[in-house]
Amino acid sequence: MAHIKQDQKKLVARVRRISGQVASLERALTRDTECGAILQQLTAVRGAINGLILEVMEGHLKSHVAHDNPADQAELAPVLSVLRSYLK
Amino acid sequence: MAHIKQDQKKLVARVRRISGQVASLERALTRDTECGAILQQLTAVRGAINGLILEVMEGHLKSHVAHDNPADQAELAPVLSVLRSYLK
Amino acid sequence: MAHIKQDQKKLVARVRRISGQVASLERALTRDTECGAILQQLTAVRGAINGLILEVMEGHLKSHVAHDNPADQAELAPVLSVLRSYLK
Amino acid sequence: MAHIKQDQKKLVARVRRISGQVASLERALTRDTECGAILQQLTAVRGAINGLILEVMEGHLKSHVAHDNPADQAELAPVLSVLRSYLK
Repeated sequence: MAHIKQDQKKLVARVRRISGQVASLERALTRDTECGAILQQLTAVRGAINGLILEVMEGHLKSHVAHDNPADQAELAPVLSVLRSYLK
Repeated sequence: MAHIKQDQKKLVARVRRISGQVASLERALTRDTECGAILQQLTAVRGAINGLILEVMEGHLKSHVAHDNPADQAELAPVLSVLRSYLK
Repeated sequence: MAHIKQDQKKLVARVRRISGQVASLERALTRDTECGAILQQLTAVRGAINGLILEVMEGHLKSHVAHDNPADQAELAPVLSVLRSYLK
Repeated sequence: MAHIKQDQKKLVARVRRISGQVASLERALTRDTECGAILQQLTAVRGAINGLILEVMEGHLKSHVAHDNPADQAELAPVLSVLRSYLK
């Protein structure tokens, strides 16, 4: 939980940006925007959520599981690289 | 674009639910909530976005590409089933 | 089905490359290879499968649903761009 | 690496099943099989690869990062549940 506290400002700022994206998506739906543009906005929101999930997971693994043990931190690398390929 | 107009109320309601989820995520971050709960909330938002993307894509394919041609509508089925397996 | 017939050589070549990747993954497992390398090989196989799924879906939508209608082909574009962002 | 050694038989058996699926996919392509059936086979191979990636990642996190520390093992739970929701 420490890493959430430590990164709180940054994480809250990211969530607020996502709120803004979702609000703009709502406006687009009420203004008869083309489906292509709607799909692009939806995919952008999904990308932002994926990025936030990756950040929280990485923080959790590093601070609650690997702690400050350099060897354990190094062992996280292959898992984090798979996660990044999933959560683009 | 017709399907967005036709389903506008339903789509806007779904987006508003997502806005609510994102707002509750922001509150959770400011209240030192456990990472596990934060990750669960994030995964739920991602699931809701995926569901909305699937609905808009399905509507787009059905009304703008297959139109009201039964044979073309039937040919969409295998693609829609792959999309559903991705966008759970 | 016509597009599978038409692209058969290319599709079979891609499947054979995936077979080769899977065979090399089996060798890696029997030779006590580092987990990081195993995970990389697995992620590469997944990427190759995703690419093949995208190609077959695109071919199916273009030849069985949009047919040779330019307007319908154009309407596929926003869906194909979402699929590409998923199936990297 | 110890977990790969320990689970080697099980992992190799899974990889051989995937090889079999890929070989049957190649046969399907050469026998003018319907695209729907090809897409289903492709999606099944993708699911099998995802399952294997999840198993190797879980083994790696448990044995190389959390080691036999019960508290660290418990802290893996929220991350593993997110991974499972991705790697169905």
